[in-house]
Amino acid sequence: MKIAIQGEPGAFSHEAALRMVPRCTIVPCARSAEVFDRVGRGSVGGAVIPIENTLAGSVAEHFDLLLSRDVFIQNEFPLRIVHNVIAASGVKFGDLRRVYSHPVALDQCRDFFRRYPKIEPVAFYDTAGSVKHVIEKQLRDSAGIAGKQAASVYGGTILRAGIEDDKRNFTRFFLIRRRRQVRPGANKTSLAFSVKNIPGALFKALSVFALRDISLSKIESRPVRGRPWEYVFYVDILRGDDEPARNALRHLGEVADFVKVLGVYPAS
Amino acid sequence: MKIAIQGEPGAFSHEAALRMVPRCTIVPCARSAEVFDRVGRGSVGGAVIPIENTLAGSVAEHFDLLLSRDVFIQNEFPLRIVHNVIAASGVKFGDLRRVYSHPVALDQCRDFFRRYPKIEPVAFYDTAGSVKHVIEKQLRDSAGIAGKQAASVYGGTILRAGIEDDKRNFTRFFLIRRRRQVRPGANKTSLAFSVKNIPGALFKALSVFALRDISLSKIESRPVRGRPWEYVFYVDILRGDDEPARNALRHLGEVADFVKVLGVYPAS
Repeated sequence: MKIAIQGEPGAFSHEAALRMVPRCTIVPCARSAEVFDRVGRGSVGGAVIPIENTLAGSVAEHFDLLLSRDVFIQNEFPLRIVHNVIAASGVKFGDLRRVYSHPVALDQCRDFFRRYPKIEPVAFYDTAGSVKHVIEKQLRDSAGIAGKQAASVYGGTILRAGIEDDKRNFTRFFLIRRRRQVRPGANKTSLAFSVKNIPGALFKALSVFALRDISLSKIESRPVRGRPWEYVFYVDILRGDDEPARNALRHLGEVADFVKVLGVYPAS
Repeated sequence: MKIAIQGEPGAFSHEAALRMVPRCTIVPCARSAEVFDRVGRGSVGGAVIPIENTLAGSVAEHFDLLLSRDVFIQNEFPLRIVHNVIAASGVKFGDLRRVYSHPVALDQCRDFFRRYPKIEPVAFYDTAGSVKHVIEKQLRDSAGIAGKQAASVYGGTILRAGIEDDKRNFTRFFLIRRRRQVRPGANKTSLAFSVKNIPGALFKALSVFALRDISLSKIESRPVRGRPWEYVFYVDILRGDDEPARNALRHLGEVADFVKVLGVYPAS
């Protein structure tokens, strides 16, 4: 199956796609809107997109696109973000003087640079792109920091693995497809809704879950683009497509301005 | 007054700092933790930090730092993100072949690059840093994209102003200081709290506001670092330090595991 991702081959989205859809073929896209376009017109079987990171927070653009496009979440996957030092083959660790990567990745590997003060961190626009760069230019004193998938895509050698400071760095990915399909064992629902900007409106909306003992595992408000003072709420509930969930959603429809179910899928 | 910011001089944080504390002196820091360290030990009078962007979402790291550090929000400011083409003095617009900037900024100026197909967008690690680069190297065919403050800091010329596609791109900044101080006219409160992971716990917590007709303008859940299944909620309420707000916070203390008031300040 063809799976669209945003970013260069070898990016963490590529790694997540292979974990979620083994043996898939990656279709890299420069922009997230293009990823959703491809899913919408069926030129790919689906897409794998990052939705939130434990350190960096939510990917707001992807929430906006889930809301505005006609796609359906079919699965979730939390990928542990492991950073590796990757160089052209033949380069030795002792030869390294510069290591390129995205500033966020460099910042997540501060212990490494403290331990090897002779290696200078250099900011680059992308993690996988930094590996592509050092290998294409055949740099002998430089490496990139990226996920292991970048080493396999560009034929690089992993000189040091798992150099990130914080081992609790996870990115949650969604597999999205065009058709609404609920997999067996689906026990989690992602939805979006908006309420009028009056006191207690959100409280009333959340009562539809509380009254049925349905747990929320996420809630986030986002301003509606171009409409100040109006908010969309993104909520995950720990129920699949069952009787209490259907009742709660029908009830929510009575108190909310609009409701959209973004997906029903098995909790990871 | 000395104000710490994260990033290079000329960054949007610099622009926001000058709007929030006119005539302040900027203390640029490489990392956000350093910004908070400086505020905490009093080596600066305060700091100006981005907290959320209408397109890119919340800055999770800053929410985490507001929670863990002993600082207090004294003001908020929504800065319109205006992108400009900035080059070394004497460079003409017609000479440009390459324009550098952070990938997010390049992506927000797609109409510009569509209109001038001879100009190639080149990814750089930072917006203000791209301007610093083209001016320090005295490039005659290149420019950077950044806020206008970068032109004034590095002595560049603005060749095109306001080239961003979306004029509704705002970043909300906080002024934080070490001491708790509530300014006159403060009518907004930012707070964080956590509740037990049981159905209806969040609902009960929000009832303390709903029962007193207190409006929320933001709510966001964030997993607690290193403690899966535990969440912290960040909430903004549209009340200052008055009787109903104090009652609501006392009531919240009864139902929540912990409550922290992050700041009380005038709504922008």
